[in-house]
Amino acid sequence: MLKIGLLGCGRIGQVHARSIAQTEGARVSAVADAFGEPARMLGNKTGAKVMEPIALIESADVDAVVIGTPTDTHYKFIHAAAAAGKAIFCEKPVDLSADRIRDCIKAVEAAGVPFLTAFNRRFDPNFANVHARIAAGEIGDVEIVTIQSRDPSPPPIGYVKSSGGLFRDMMIHDLDMARFLLGEEPVSVYAVGAALVDAEVGRLGDVDTAAVTLSTSSGRICQITNSRRASYGYDQRIEVHGAKGMLRAENVLENTVEIANSAGFTKSPAQHFFLERYEAAYRAEMAHFVDCIANSKPIEPGIEDGLRAQLLADAATRSFQTAEAISIC
Amino acid sequence: MLKIGLLGCGRIGQVHARSIAQTEGARVSAVADAFGEPARMLGNKTGAKVMEPIALIESADVDAVVIGTPTDTHYKFIHAAAAAGKAIFCEKPVDLSADRIRDCIKAVEAAGVPFLTAFNRRFDPNFANVHARIAAGEIGDVEIVTIQSRDPSPPPIGYVKSSGGLFRDMMIHDLDMARFLLGEEPVSVYAVGAALVDAEVGRLGDVDTAAVTLSTSSGRICQITNSRRASYGYDQRIEVHGAKGMLRAENVLENTVEIANSAGFTKSPAQHFFLERYEAAYRAEMAHFVDCIANSKPIEPGIEDGLRAQLLADAATRSFQTAEAISIC
Amino acid sequence: MLKIGLLGCGRIGQVHARSIAQTEGARVSAVADAFGEPARMLGNKTGAKVMEPIALIESADVDAVVIGTPTDTHYKFIHAAAAAGKAIFCEKPVDLSADRIRDCIKAVEAAGVPFLTAFNRRFDPNFANVHARIAAGEIGDVEIVTIQSRDPSPPPIGYVKSSGGLFRDMMIHDLDMARFLLGEEPVSVYAVGAALVDAEVGRLGDVDTAAVTLSTSSGRICQITNSRRASYGYDQRIEVHGAKGMLRAENVLENTVEIANSAGFTKSPAQHFFLERYEAAYRAEMAHFVDCIANSKPIEPGIEDGLRAQLLADAATRSFQTAEAISIC
Amino acid sequence: MLKIGLLGCGRIGQVHARSIAQTEGARVSAVADAFGEPARMLGNKTGAKVMEPIALIESADVDAVVIGTPTDTHYKFIHAAAAAGKAIFCEKPVDLSADRIRDCIKAVEAAGVPFLTAFNRRFDPNFANVHARIAAGEIGDVEIVTIQSRDPSPPPIGYVKSSGGLFRDMMIHDLDMARFLLGEEPVSVYAVGAALVDAEVGRLGDVDTAAVTLSTSSGRICQITNSRRASYGYDQRIEVHGAKGMLRAENVLENTVEIANSAGFTKSPAQHFFLERYEAAYRAEMAHFVDCIANSKPIEPGIEDGLRAQLLADAATRSFQTAEAISIC
Repeated sequence: MLKIGLLGCGRIGQVHARSIAQTEGARVSAVADAFGEPARMLGNKTGAKVMEPIALIESADVDAVVIGTPTDTHYKFIHAAAAAGKAIFCEKPVDLSADRIRDCIKAVEAAGVPFLTAFNRRFDPNFANVHARIAAGEIGDVEIVTIQSRDPSPPPIGYVKSSGGLFRDMMIHDLDMARFLLGEEPVSVYAVGAALVDAEVGRLGDVDTAAVTLSTSSGRICQITNSRRASYGYDQRIEVHGAKGMLRAENVLENTVEIANSAGFTKSPAQHFFLERYEAAYRAEMAHFVDCIANSKPIEPGIEDGLRAQLLADAATRSFQTAEAISIC
Repeated sequence: MLKIGLLGCGRIGQVHARSIAQTEGARVSAVADAFGEPARMLGNKTGAKVMEPIALIESADVDAVVIGTPTDTHYKFIHAAAAAGKAIFCEKPVDLSADRIRDCIKAVEAAGVPFLTAFNRRFDPNFANVHARIAAGEIGDVEIVTIQSRDPSPPPIGYVKSSGGLFRDMMIHDLDMARFLLGEEPVSVYAVGAALVDAEVGRLGDVDTAAVTLSTSSGRICQITNSRRASYGYDQRIEVHGAKGMLRAENVLENTVEIANSAGFTKSPAQHFFLERYEAAYRAEMAHFVDCIANSKPIEPGIEDGLRAQLLADAATRSFQTAEAISIC
Repeated sequence: MLKIGLLGCGRIGQVHARSIAQTEGARVSAVADAFGEPARMLGNKTGAKVMEPIALIESADVDAVVIGTPTDTHYKFIHAAAAAGKAIFCEKPVDLSADRIRDCIKAVEAAGVPFLTAFNRRFDPNFANVHARIAAGEIGDVEIVTIQSRDPSPPPIGYVKSSGGLFRDMMIHDLDMARFLLGEEPVSVYAVGAALVDAEVGRLGDVDTAAVTLSTSSGRICQITNSRRASYGYDQRIEVHGAKGMLRAENVLENTVEIANSAGFTKSPAQHFFLERYEAAYRAEMAHFVDCIANSKPIEPGIEDGLRAQLLADAATRSFQTAEAISIC
Repeated sequence: MLKIGLLGCGRIGQVHARSIAQTEGARVSAVADAFGEPARMLGNKTGAKVMEPIALIESADVDAVVIGTPTDTHYKFIHAAAAAGKAIFCEKPVDLSADRIRDCIKAVEAAGVPFLTAFNRRFDPNFANVHARIAAGEIGDVEIVTIQSRDPSPPPIGYVKSSGGLFRDMMIHDLDMARFLLGEEPVSVYAVGAALVDAEVGRLGDVDTAAVTLSTSSGRICQITNSRRASYGYDQRIEVHGAKGMLRAENVLENTVEIANSAGFTKSPAQHFFLERYEAAYRAEMAHFVDCIANSKPIEPGIEDGLRAQLLADAATRSFQTAEAISIC
């Protein structure tokens, strides 16, 4: 039975607590939060002890930590957990600075602790199915990856200010997905973007509508588009064109019902809320973490994947700012 | 070059004229109509002679006749054409009386002339594809056939009065389709129906909403529903469930465009107009007729199929009237 | 907090235990089973007491009972629970005999206890959405209901022997769904069927392929087909054609992925396993039961619905045996 | 009645002859070809005179010319037709050199003759429907356009050599479509590409797999992918994301049939052959040309559109060669 300590009892911490409850061989043994109330509530619900973060990390009753606290605290908790020899499940992004992520990598590698960077979308049953079938050779060598990723509605402007920008905050998921599906590292990044949804975003130097093109050394291509709004729900689609065929994962709709009338044939919108859309992904992600630790399997995506995605997001940001394609080494 | 004489220059006659123009190895050589104007117009358009019906049938310049005149004239034109040794393409229904169809069969068989009963839907590329794949064994033995057939809007009440009733006028297409897909003759018919669209139809003893169940001696089942209205276009769907799988042909939509917005994902309505919906079927039907004559192949559906469908429509009518299942021998 | 006692710790009892765990305001307080091991296991998992059935029913620690035991035990447990004044959640069918269900109704009505007949499909989010939109008038008056219901693979022949026959065992779900969607009571039933999957089923006097037609006094029609096999998964579709449009709920597929290659565009099969296909329905069903009791709302479907469905299944069986349409009063 | 002279009696010339036959108010009055046989055959079929090209252009029996000859002959025929005051329907590309197109523009403008650049895809009923609905404001301001355009199989290597490269030969259609849908002129072009289908293409300096990103001055974005192969047919999809919703046109499949079996649910491949896929577009394109001339309406796309698309193709080629984004003025 893997005893897990939760750092952060906010929305994402509660998601992970529910996932753990549905995972064989694991339980929440301790929780911590900067604020007393969320910690107390989650402690009651799970029966776990409420502790201070560092005490939790060092507790003998904790085998692994889930870091779901604000991004700027990841660095210290990763170092503390590595020092304590605990397995680490860390929300993305690992850090907004690639150099600081490199520091974390050193600490994690020195300690030899398991580490999962929580790119939850890799565990979505639909996207995972696409990945597995590429690996099984169903479409031959990958040639073109297309990712459409659009939020149902823009975040508050306050969030935008501290987000690191669309490329680091939102597109980072798609950049990781691109690496996951391309099967090769991108060597160049080209980005365009604009503030078409909210001019205030533009005044902050950020964008809410963007597109990126990645290419790999063998010539594989990935195109990504992002928008901070989509009237029809949370738009999350991928498509992979290979030498022998094409695989695509369509949106997950609210239900399977279709109405037919003089307007035509109408299906329901896509599921709106990311916690609902990716509920199965969060569960599978936690199950993977627990299984890898229990059975000493390598964890993917690891901390190196966290760094790679961050470097692509940095490059995309620079490409947008300079209007030039950026080479990645 | 097969020289075809057209009897009837109304809407369906014009359809056949266009089909002939697109068919290799055939041309319209003569046209006839009870009214002068339609005959003159179609004659101009096709370059064919305008003649009196019997003269047309007997003309040396006519190898085959297309009978597209009102149903109550079919009988005499079939007899005349058989007597003249001409191949016959006859619109459905052959006649509203099964006994009179039997008379026609005698005449046609005695003369040994080719005969096609124009159940155009058998030639629809989608339905024909389903039939061909059943024949190829793709779904194993047929078990359940489901046919949904709904007109976009009801005909004028005057038409209803002389139509022979929904089962003989509208469902006869589906009864032929059922025979086409079941691969066995139905041995029992059960029908229900009501006037849900227009109460006046009910006062005339007819229905505008109906359902039929057919079963064959080996236990295969077919369910059919008809409605005289469908707000979403001309609803024409078939589905065949077999031992190894299922084949279905969906509606033909106006276009492939889908709009996504807060209402969901909306595709266009189904094509509304039967001449548009079955344009390809009419063309393939004529091509089959011309090809069978040119190459001395057996024609399907023949006049016997016209009789069989009529007997099923009669049985369905009787079942509706008596509320009992009717056996067919 | 509603304290629920589970009678029956087999597959369906475990499903209900999981649903209760996800339902606010309810917990499993006691479990009982004819066998010791399943009861012990479920007791451990839920923390509930293991008791004898009648003791459980009468326990002060039990407010409501879930009857998930074999059908022939329902009668006695319903009477005991009614006598003890406990709310009742009873698996379908209530009983295989309509007269015995009428006895149960008397006992339940005399005791005034809440009763839910567990027709879980009414709670499927897709089918419930169709029902809600009919009620909201989106398609006008209902005219034609079509239900396709096909199991992925046949049950063991031993199960067939004691099942009461396809109409009472399998189609009863669809007959309840028909009532749910038609909005009127059927007044006639016509059934056909055959043993096309397994001849042994036919030798037992049962069928594995069947079709039923229902009609109501105002002329509404429902067609149902059942098959004990479907190579493409658990086929569960409904379609409702109304005066103003059509609503349909399509199958729930395993995932949203489509592969395109020279064979065409292929989506995954439908979910195969009924517990997976109806997982959300089981959860919503339990939530409805708990909510109705907590807030003194009327429960639907009630025990009367259990009787009505049984009467339709009886009539369908008789229709199949006599080859005649059966009137329902 | 518009008398049309056809220059070029090859495959595309025959397509236009068929379209004219189906267009009210127009007929083929003369045909010309560099080779005798194709001209003679098309002359026979249409009843048109066979002439030498320049004689045809200058003939009093020709009101308009359709230029369907090899690209390098367009220049002289455009000049001749403009000098003769004839309306011009010219296959794309107008010329492989932007400067020579500018010469043609001068000649056409000086003569004041109507001119259509045959970007047939604008007339596809599906794509035209998307364009019309954008214009009607159904999705608000356009933000992101995505175009997937993939041929079913690569052309002969000999064709590749003289094609001007993928960007000028194949993607030019998509670049015109991008302008058509964006509603603004692109101001920057970024292209990547590789020879993933056939290494020989790469040795010639060309690509068979490519992606382009366009952006406009207001920040609208278009992403295009091209491949010279697609096992599932002729892949032709567009998608337009706007402020209020999204419009997309899916592939046109061979038929509407779906088979369900243990592999899942399989629809037919997309139509493979461009003449079949765009048959309706060719017809609508010719009808537009004839209608605009008959009723003195402005023709779109005109010769300026031919130039604009060529400039984008040139810029994409340069971007691919330099790995830099190219600005367009």
